[in-house]
Amino acid sequence: MNLEKYLKEKAEIIERALVDRLPSENTVPHVIHQAMRYSCLGGGKRLRAILALEACSAVGGNPETVLDFACAIEMIHAYSLIHDDLPAMDDDDYRRGKLTNHKVYGEGIAVLAGDALLTHAFEILTYMSKYLDAEMVVQIIKEVSEACGSQGLIGGQVVDLKSEGENIDLNTLEYIYQNKTGKLILVALRGGAIIGGATAQQLAAVTLYGENFGLAFQITDDILDVVGDTSKLGKEVGADLRRQKSTYPSLFGLTKAREIAKNCISQCEKALVVLPKRNDYLHALARFVLEREY
Amino acid sequence: MNLEKYLKEKAEIIERALVDRLPSENTVPHVIHQAMRYSCLGGGKRLRAILALEACSAVGGNPETVLDFACAIEMIHAYSLIHDDLPAMDDDDYRRGKLTNHKVYGEGIAVLAGDALLTHAFEILTYMSKYLDAEMVVQIIKEVSEACGSQGLIGGQVVDLKSEGENIDLNTLEYIYQNKTGKLILVALRGGAIIGGATAQQLAAVTLYGENFGLAFQITDDILDVVGDTSKLGKEVGADLRRQKSTYPSLFGLTKAREIAKNCISQCEKALVVLPKRNDYLHALARFVLEREY
Repeated sequence: MNLEKYLKEKAEIIERALVDRLPSENTVPHVIHQAMRYSCLGGGKRLRAILALEACSAVGGNPETVLDFACAIEMIHAYSLIHDDLPAMDDDDYRRGKLTNHKVYGEGIAVLAGDALLTHAFEILTYMSKYLDAEMVVQIIKEVSEACGSQGLIGGQVVDLKSEGENIDLNTLEYIYQNKTGKLILVALRGGAIIGGATAQQLAAVTLYGENFGLAFQITDDILDVVGDTSKLGKEVGADLRRQKSTYPSLFGLTKAREIAKNCISQCEKALVVLPKRNDYLHALARFVLEREY
Repeated sequence: MNLEKYLKEKAEIIERALVDRLPSENTVPHVIHQAMRYSCLGGGKRLRAILALEACSAVGGNPETVLDFACAIEMIHAYSLIHDDLPAMDDDDYRRGKLTNHKVYGEGIAVLAGDALLTHAFEILTYMSKYLDAEMVVQIIKEVSEACGSQGLIGGQVVDLKSEGENIDLNTLEYIYQNKTGKLILVALRGGAIIGGATAQQLAAVTLYGENFGLAFQITDDILDVVGDTSKLGKEVGADLRRQKSTYPSLFGLTKAREIAKNCISQCEKALVVLPKRNDYLHALARFVLEREY
């Protein structure tokens, strides 16, 4: 398997699906649709969307039926990054090598573009009722709203914001990682599996995979901020250190942090055993998290 | 009918329902739940929620089944006000006589509290599947997301933001009013009617009522900003003039603006004729819009 080629092809499928599902820049008011497309298109690994597709396949589902869901997840991811980059939050000027939304469109439009992407994500989820049972659609909207709410993604952002410049303990760091990054990755996988018709046992396995995947992903993010290459990452390294952020490398050292991430990925691989067919891509994606350079 | 007593009683029902449906301040992270409750509880006419209840009753439905929906609408209303008050938007320090969310909790938390209220609104809407058909729940989530998206509420906010300090024409003003204020009022009524089991003809009547109600409501808002009483409004009058905002009174003069609002309310009353039973409250609410002092 050529993982790089596979990731590129899947990312292109998601990109095209997003192009189709975002309002056109010709639609009034132009500026909000430009701002939405600016941050949601033309970049990113599309990892969450790809996980949704593969979770669906892994339980025997048709990945075509998961495209709306995968796009909604990517819109929510884009909204969370726009708001996270705002001056009142992380105050970042660059994201994926290009100016952040508020640097291009101003803060007011950036707040509204985030709001609009979040709202549009929920609209997209309702489209699934064309080909899925309405009860399943409601269940998925419920899972997504819980994962992204004040006790999920937003909760993680809140604790992250409140911890800036403070020495935080491992419990707090775990809370931030489980929620800020972990919950959206987890719901991407769970949603994909549910749409694919997962049994309760399969869904439990995908959940275990997702929890460990999310934590490993965040730890390697921390590690790349220490040892990564700015040109590959599309963002400057060393930002956590400058902001005095507690991270896995700062709490445990690089070697131990790498070991913890590796253990998480072993858990991911173990979890996959109960799935009906061996999904090479879920295995490969887990390994990618450990080995990635971007 | 004692309209004031009626409005007060209904607002109390909505307030209690919101108290039950918002995460407790004891839930981690405390600050986000405090901020959500700060802006969503303890104030406001609850007009959108009351309209939802009455639209449901007017088509013969049970208003008990519309409480989740009504609370979701109020949460969305609260989120839109928090974001609208931000320094990057209207930059308001006071709302309903108390400090705005970002003045109390800071801009970062205010952005996130708005995000969380919007997300929680969609979660609340999924609760309706306990007592409504899942297909109806999906339809309502679709209508709400469209009404609040980049071609609805947010679209109105965008054009409003971009028009600040500019002389705008009537078309632009109408776009702002129809979207920024109108769409949420309209979907409150339509959602209530759909939950109540409205026929297509009844839904069309409620829609006509809602479109005219929303415009009249916004015009009287403009008028109150000119002739209102700060102590009754809970906000300073004259803000539109100071910001050089185009409004119905500035474009048409006070007399003509009042006449247009009055015509809208006549349209509201006409629309009600096709509903199965005379709903005195929908009539009274329409008259309240004309006569209100707050």
